[in-house]
Amino acid sequence: MSEQPSPSTAAMLVIGDEILSGRTKERNAGHLAERLDPVGIALREIRVVPDETARIVEAVDYLRDRHTYVFTSGGIGPTHDDITAEAIAKALDRPLIEDPRAVAILEKHYAERQLPFTAARRRMTRMPEGATLIENRVSGAPGFVIENVHVMAGVPSIFEAMLDAVLPTLKLSRPLTIRTIATDFGEGTFGEALARVAADHPNVAIGSYPRHDGTRYSAEIVIRGLDSEDADVARIAVASMLENLAETD
Amino acid sequence: MSEQPSPSTAAMLVIGDEILSGRTKERNAGHLAERLDPVGIALREIRVVPDETARIVEAVDYLRDRHTYVFTSGGIGPTHDDITAEAIAKALDRPLIEDPRAVAILEKHYAERQLPFTAARRRMTRMPEGATLIENRVSGAPGFVIENVHVMAGVPSIFEAMLDAVLPTLKLSRPLTIRTIATDFGEGTFGEALARVAADHPNVAIGSYPRHDGTRYSAEIVIRGLDSEDADVARIAVASMLENLAETD
Repeated sequence: MSEQPSPSTAAMLVIGDEILSGRTKERNAGHLAERLDPVGIALREIRVVPDETARIVEAVDYLRDRHTYVFTSGGIGPTHDDITAEAIAKALDRPLIEDPRAVAILEKHYAERQLPFTAARRRMTRMPEGATLIENRVSGAPGFVIENVHVMAGVPSIFEAMLDAVLPTLKLSRPLTIRTIATDFGEGTFGEALARVAADHPNVAIGSYPRHDGTRYSAEIVIRGLDSEDADVARIAVASMLENLAETD
Repeated sequence: MSEQPSPSTAAMLVIGDEILSGRTKERNAGHLAERLDPVGIALREIRVVPDETARIVEAVDYLRDRHTYVFTSGGIGPTHDDITAEAIAKALDRPLIEDPRAVAILEKHYAERQLPFTAARRRMTRMPEGATLIENRVSGAPGFVIENVHVMAGVPSIFEAMLDAVLPTLKLSRPLTIRTIATDFGEGTFGEALARVAADHPNVAIGSYPRHDGTRYSAEIVIRGLDSEDADVARIAVASMLENLAETD
């Protein structure tokens, strides 16, 4: 695999007391993972932090140095507890400005709906100087990209719309090849044999994901590799291992 | 609030490539949040890391120093990619042993089911020396507590059963008082007025959680405080603010 480009990596930062209190179920990280995996960007870390500037700054500082891309969700609405924009500006040491393009978008958005462009709504135009806007087809107020940090909404329908806008702008690695094998054996049965197969196939990552339906276990064995031939060879080895187990069962 | 004991805090560490790839949807953190919030333990951070020893050690080191309790999920099954137990032992600088109580539990568990106690299953008895077991009523193999770190399963039904066993062992703070007010106004309408109410009531935390049904916004305003009287006074102030908005609408 040494000749392959190393895959891009990503981290997700979820900002919001409502997730940590259990009031709102987090759905955006799972959606991001589902969208990034097939295009070969490996989501490597997810963090959820409260609506506190110091915690957001600390997390952004850490994650943006270690990953190709950082995605944030939450905290860009119109209320006083929406502090993501200023926290990102602080983390990147840039001035926070009212972005004139965002002002123009929201002036038009609210005028068309005959709603007042209140000071609260105007908060949603604030972003670090030098940001690129992320289109929001759902509710107008844009997200933004600054350096490698993509700042998006927490409401899932808006997060997903923003991700649709962002994905074509990313440098996609060569897609990962993924092979999946379902088995009615539980992990306790095939664990040792699978470890041997994994050791024999160092060019792929082999994971085992248990299912428990309340009475019994089954599992999915997943093989991921940058080279499709490596993945296919490993898949055959896993299938053969499971067949041998079935015969000796 | 200075006379109140400061509330206990918690962090959740989710361990698993399957979450980061989007293959499995994370549910345990939300469940933990829902269980901790009513008893006054504030979940303050969630992290999801891959099945890599260095990343688990780093996260455990960070979180256990900053929170009263750390809960982990995932990576304690029987396969080679289940490395949580050794990573926790490494983070806490303790030897990893085969716990004789866990061996006894699993010997009995598999004997009753006429299943072999394989080497893979025996992996699930490994834990740092000095750990306390967490009962697993679903599938036998126990979790464990070492210092302030609670190591639990990733399969949601088992995680929840282990949490049931753990909760009575925690020091519960005085329960938080939570007051919720739903409104058909969107945040853009009440944002400024809510900021003034929040500034007037520093003893409570006031959050605003937008909903978007595809066409329009509504919101829930949530007030949290250690003192129920403070929370009630703030609730009345928020309700009065919303009534004033309705009259001027």
